[in-house]
Amino acid sequence: MTHYFTEEGSVEAVNARMRGEVTPRLREVMESLVKHLHAFAKEVELTQTEWEFGIDFLTKTGQICSAERQEFILLSDVLGLSMLVDAINNRRPAGATENTVFGPFHVEDAPIRAMGDTICLDGKGETCLFTGRVIDIHGEPIEGACVDVWSDNAEGFYDVQQPDVQPKWNNRGRFYTGADGAYAFRGIKPVSYPIPDDGPVGQMLDRLGRHPYRPAHMHFLVTSPGFQTIVTHTFVGDDPYLSDDAVFGVKQTLVAPFEHVRGDTEWHSPFDFVMVAKA
Amino acid sequence: MTHYFTEEGSVEAVNARMRGEVTPRLREVMESLVKHLHAFAKEVELTQTEWEFGIDFLTKTGQICSAERQEFILLSDVLGLSMLVDAINNRRPAGATENTVFGPFHVEDAPIRAMGDTICLDGKGETCLFTGRVIDIHGEPIEGACVDVWSDNAEGFYDVQQPDVQPKWNNRGRFYTGADGAYAFRGIKPVSYPIPDDGPVGQMLDRLGRHPYRPAHMHFLVTSPGFQTIVTHTFVGDDPYLSDDAVFGVKQTLVAPFEHVRGDTEWHSPFDFVMVAKA
Repeated sequence: MTHYFTEEGSVEAVNARMRGEVTPRLREVMESLVKHLHAFAKEVELTQTEWEFGIDFLTKTGQICSAERQEFILLSDVLGLSMLVDAINNRRPAGATENTVFGPFHVEDAPIRAMGDTICLDGKGETCLFTGRVIDIHGEPIEGACVDVWSDNAEGFYDVQQPDVQPKWNNRGRFYTGADGAYAFRGIKPVSYPIPDDGPVGQMLDRLGRHPYRPAHMHFLVTSPGFQTIVTHTFVGDDPYLSDDAVFGVKQTLVAPFEHVRGDTEWHSPFDFVMVAKA
Repeated sequence: MTHYFTEEGSVEAVNARMRGEVTPRLREVMESLVKHLHAFAKEVELTQTEWEFGIDFLTKTGQICSAERQEFILLSDVLGLSMLVDAINNRRPAGATENTVFGPFHVEDAPIRAMGDTICLDGKGETCLFTGRVIDIHGEPIEGACVDVWSDNAEGFYDVQQPDVQPKWNNRGRFYTGADGAYAFRGIKPVSYPIPDDGPVGQMLDRLGRHPYRPAHMHFLVTSPGFQTIVTHTFVGDDPYLSDDAVFGVKQTLVAPFEHVRGDTEWHSPFDFVMVAKA
């Protein structure tokens, strides 16, 4: 019995076409993808003109991609998909530090620095002391954890975005904890910045009445053998974009205190990282 | 009250971000898109690796697009989305001729030919006489309807795919009906051919155990003032790919008879087009 395409039976017509040798996982993912894609088109009764707009949008999104620009990741970010995939794959018990988006600006093998050293090499911005401990879920310190940190500079750019302007490794560094699990380094109080908005994703945000800004944040990649890796940021608690991060990265537990110390000449941001043992 | 992102509330977090000035239709489409995109990721618990694969796939799909190649339309076609959008937007009463996919090979302003003329200019293939009438839903002939036809040649290529090999306007032509609504022209019995399968979409089909072939078909674009435009094909009834067209274009009512006539030297394919008055 031939299964011709009909509006009502569209999902079955497409999914019945997969052959037996397809892996169970690929079959599961594709069946769900087709089901939801068709459900979307049916729910809104997508017009031919809207479909053409969508084809053109996706094409432009692909064509602006380059070694330095990943517009499909931006699209995933602004639609909340990146955060959702991270959340699904990093469910942790209450009290453990939550993940957020990795972002495109991490660089491997940043310099290993001594505790308390500064990562800011361009002399710009408001100095901030970041301190805390890396502990397990029971509050025990974790020795030998790597705290890999990076932020934008006082003008809102990461060093890799301005290789001819900023010193190499500006606002980046790695710190290894001792027996007390403590870390400490000086950087700047990060500043908010827009995601690249001169492409299709920026145009989409504009049409949706959304701005492209991310609230100021310090990136942390915390690793230790035997523990789940933490990929997160701490957010500057008084940032005006805290409640509407363009990529939905903010979680309540990641909003960190930033306090004036030393007679207002320096900020201080304390934050503990709570790691969960690998299963 | 700040609405931070959570796994459970992911859809609301994203959709709440749209501002009041967004048009109602754009809001409706985006809300549904985000809802189904997130539902897909949640249903399959999409992994980080699968997400990365998807980002890479979409990027490659965009980057292979050119003036001659539209890989996102191919993707839409093989996922049944193109047929679904056509179906949603062209619901017709029983008895009316159904639409199918337009395809990328139509060319505007094909030569207007006299009834009974041939459209085959390269002398290849098995000759076929196409005849029928353009009528309304009550069976009354429609005078002055334009029957714009195109097909591949005997080797499975449209003239625009082989501009240096085939004569210009090979297997194309327009015919205007007279008072009896009848049309007639000679072409070839079309042959099945693969959609372009040397890109990301072809790789996907291969992974899904699907072939890239379309069953043989003659394209028809039938227009007449006051009537809904018919964009369709007639399919050769004995084609081996009839039950598994790579783009799901086949409908039961579009499978046409192809009969041997004139002592087996020529085929004959009769088909009437039934138009619906515009609302």
